[in-house]
Amino acid sequence: MSEKIPYKIYLSENEMPKAWYNLRAHMKNKPAPLLNPSTYQPMTAGELSGVFCDELVRQELDNDTPYFDIPTEIRDFYKMYRPSPLVRAYCLEQKLQTPAKIYYKFEGNNTSGSHKLNSAVAQAYYAKRQGLKGVTTETGAGQWGTALSMACSYLGLDCKVYMVKCSYEQKPFRREVMKVYGADVTPSPSESTQVGRKILAQYPGTGGSLGCAISEAVEVATATPGYRYVLGSVLNQVMLHQSIIGLEAKTALDKYGVKPDVIIGCAGGGSNLGGLIAPFMGEKLRGEADYRFIAVEPASCPSLTRGQYRYDFCDTGMVCPLSKMYTLGSGFIPSADHAGGLRFHGMSSVLSQLYADGLMEAVAVKQTDVFQAAEDFARIEGILPAPESSHAILAAVNEAMRCKETGEEKTILFGLTGTGYFDLFAYEKFHRGEMTNYIPTEEEIAAALAKLPVIA
Amino acid sequence: MSEKIPYKIYLSENEMPKAWYNLRAHMKNKPAPLLNPSTYQPMTAGELSGVFCDELVRQELDNDTPYFDIPTEIRDFYKMYRPSPLVRAYCLEQKLQTPAKIYYKFEGNNTSGSHKLNSAVAQAYYAKRQGLKGVTTETGAGQWGTALSMACSYLGLDCKVYMVKCSYEQKPFRREVMKVYGADVTPSPSESTQVGRKILAQYPGTGGSLGCAISEAVEVATATPGYRYVLGSVLNQVMLHQSIIGLEAKTALDKYGVKPDVIIGCAGGGSNLGGLIAPFMGEKLRGEADYRFIAVEPASCPSLTRGQYRYDFCDTGMVCPLSKMYTLGSGFIPSADHAGGLRFHGMSSVLSQLYADGLMEAVAVKQTDVFQAAEDFARIEGILPAPESSHAILAAVNEAMRCKETGEEKTILFGLTGTGYFDLFAYEKFHRGEMTNYIPTEEEIAAALAKLPVIA
Repeated sequence: MSEKIPYKIYLSENEMPKAWYNLRAHMKNKPAPLLNPSTYQPMTAGELSGVFCDELVRQELDNDTPYFDIPTEIRDFYKMYRPSPLVRAYCLEQKLQTPAKIYYKFEGNNTSGSHKLNSAVAQAYYAKRQGLKGVTTETGAGQWGTALSMACSYLGLDCKVYMVKCSYEQKPFRREVMKVYGADVTPSPSESTQVGRKILAQYPGTGGSLGCAISEAVEVATATPGYRYVLGSVLNQVMLHQSIIGLEAKTALDKYGVKPDVIIGCAGGGSNLGGLIAPFMGEKLRGEADYRFIAVEPASCPSLTRGQYRYDFCDTGMVCPLSKMYTLGSGFIPSADHAGGLRFHGMSSVLSQLYADGLMEAVAVKQTDVFQAAEDFARIEGILPAPESSHAILAAVNEAMRCKETGEEKTILFGLTGTGYFDLFAYEKFHRGEMTNYIPTEEEIAAALAKLPVIA
Repeated sequence: MSEKIPYKIYLSENEMPKAWYNLRAHMKNKPAPLLNPSTYQPMTAGELSGVFCDELVRQELDNDTPYFDIPTEIRDFYKMYRPSPLVRAYCLEQKLQTPAKIYYKFEGNNTSGSHKLNSAVAQAYYAKRQGLKGVTTETGAGQWGTALSMACSYLGLDCKVYMVKCSYEQKPFRREVMKVYGADVTPSPSESTQVGRKILAQYPGTGGSLGCAISEAVEVATATPGYRYVLGSVLNQVMLHQSIIGLEAKTALDKYGVKPDVIIGCAGGGSNLGGLIAPFMGEKLRGEADYRFIAVEPASCPSLTRGQYRYDFCDTGMVCPLSKMYTLGSGFIPSADHAGGLRFHGMSSVLSQLYADGLMEAVAVKQTDVFQAAEDFARIEGILPAPESSHAILAAVNEAMRCKETGEEKTILFGLTGTGYFDLFAYEKFHRGEMTNYIPTEEEIAAALAKLPVIA
């Protein structure tokens, strides 16, 4: 600790992780298995392999192997934009006049603008290795679709993206980036799938939802020879790939003998939060160290803080497997006023289990507070953050301000998942004072939950 | 060279330059002095200090001091987004199947999206230190305006930006970013200045030009107490600040014993190119090493390749000093079809002198070729480049392809000045096949040059 800690800690390429860490291997209570949507029985590898490619099925189902080697080709791709910097937020600390020490792991220094690329390249790689022709997916805010387009373009794989219609219209530049990378982008719901046509008939003029876009992408993947479906969050395999965030962060902190007291991440499906906390949570589970973990979710889509822990479909069309998770109900659609991602109705089953076991905390924050934190952060630390990431910024600042009151010199680590360069409509709305804070009522959530099947 | 060169070379904070390098100190033929627009006599420090703040005037006029210490406050700001990576383009080399070794210095990993921040923070810092209230400037493509907004926001300085009207309308997100950073952004020409009103009367409905926006910004700076004008390119002081690009690149290459054969940069006003080549050109001028330098400019605004080397105004309104430079005439406005920056009618007087002395080459490239190179690069190297930077990409690829023909293992270094995240309208136009390649006629250039004063 005597050495001055730099503003940014970059690992060398040799220090980059050579294996992903599978937190499930060290969980006492394993996450519940995915269930077949027809039989409600645990999904077998055979059943899953119609949807996902084989190696990803293996990763999805493996609750025991602690480390998975990262193939050389993926590590080479990672080297194009990783290691990502671990930043000491000196300017923010000074501005807040807090005794807390604040670090953030910044995943935005790549064209997809977020951490999503970490799993996109892995999933595209295994699809290619299996000799597939292409993959389908959905995207909400657009980060995942962009990341997948980049990975597929690099590997020579077709990429069909179903983009939630309201995002498609609000974010023309997001879809244009995907097109630069050669992806085929369709607004969802669309007339190109059975499930899309059904939803359009039921809700004409709908702006779409992530759950619906998932249904469309899965339908196309299973109906098209040589295609599989890939998903940017929620699944165990995604959290496995995203462990590179936490592994790099931990290596960087260890180099300087720094141990965080509290680790904070925004939580939508859980890919970033799960990846960031993985190696730290592993230490906690193994009794080697203790940390506080805080999941930060939008008050407009509060699955952990206001959902129920139960089996639910991952999609609106109910064609996907069911996952046991904190959920608001697969029919829940966040208010149209909600900007950015973090709009999934449920939460990763790994994180859900950890939260149920009391190993992690969760808070829900209001949208306008999030954008105020985002703007302040941009002015102080230079980086214009993604709305998603700004949930974590707000919680970290709140934590640092509590340290100011108590005088505690806590070390705070948070995940800055990405940049907000494609979210400027939302920033503009915030500036004009037109942004609202719609918070779902108890009745709305109860109504969505009431439609779910009851599974023992 | 036995050590494997990583994909990205990051200097440590300790290795970052502590002084800027002033190439003029080692030029045998110094750049010609700025002239007073009324008397055509060399501008004195006293005259310049009405427009620029005092320390920047000193830097502007100093042709002798080889190094200027970078103040600690600026170095601390640099640490928020620097050092920038020097990237070995392994993927591009492999795709091209060239024996050439390609490196690029990537300046896009900051919210302004380009190298412009390097000078913006320096200029804002000196303005603040002088006790000024604010600064004015112009911006074309928007990179400079964004960079200055960020620097002013950080330092607590007012920032008034005159943005070329066609950019203001085509790039709503660019202006929104500036607003996030608290800048006051006005489309130019505007009714708020004398020169703006005059130009509007003469050319109603004009989309504006950089030269006109400069005139407006200068008028406001000189008429408002506590304000000065700052400029993002062309000037000697800017090239001084931007030398950090070349200094970092050279330090990184030296660490691995790599010596570039050819150094390539895009050239509008010359800030990036001048900064990138500075320490290498210094070695060439001192007879310590030899390099080829290539300036790449758009065929639609070809000041070096088709302009005349003579005194001209830096602005359309003829209120700014005159500079001896390669120019297309201060009345020259690039075709509305021209996308991105590199739209200034002249070129830095330092680079102009070097070019006149045969120390540097120049090529002009067509817009659609530039965008094709940009898209290819995005797919191969992951980064979606700015249109400006893509001029250098195209020239570097052409150079690498010549090496493939000849079998030469040349080492190529180019400047990747920034990202194209705010240029997606132009990318879209390119995709749709609607982008054209307007190249000015001999008559157009001659007409603009004919209006210039003849100065002995």
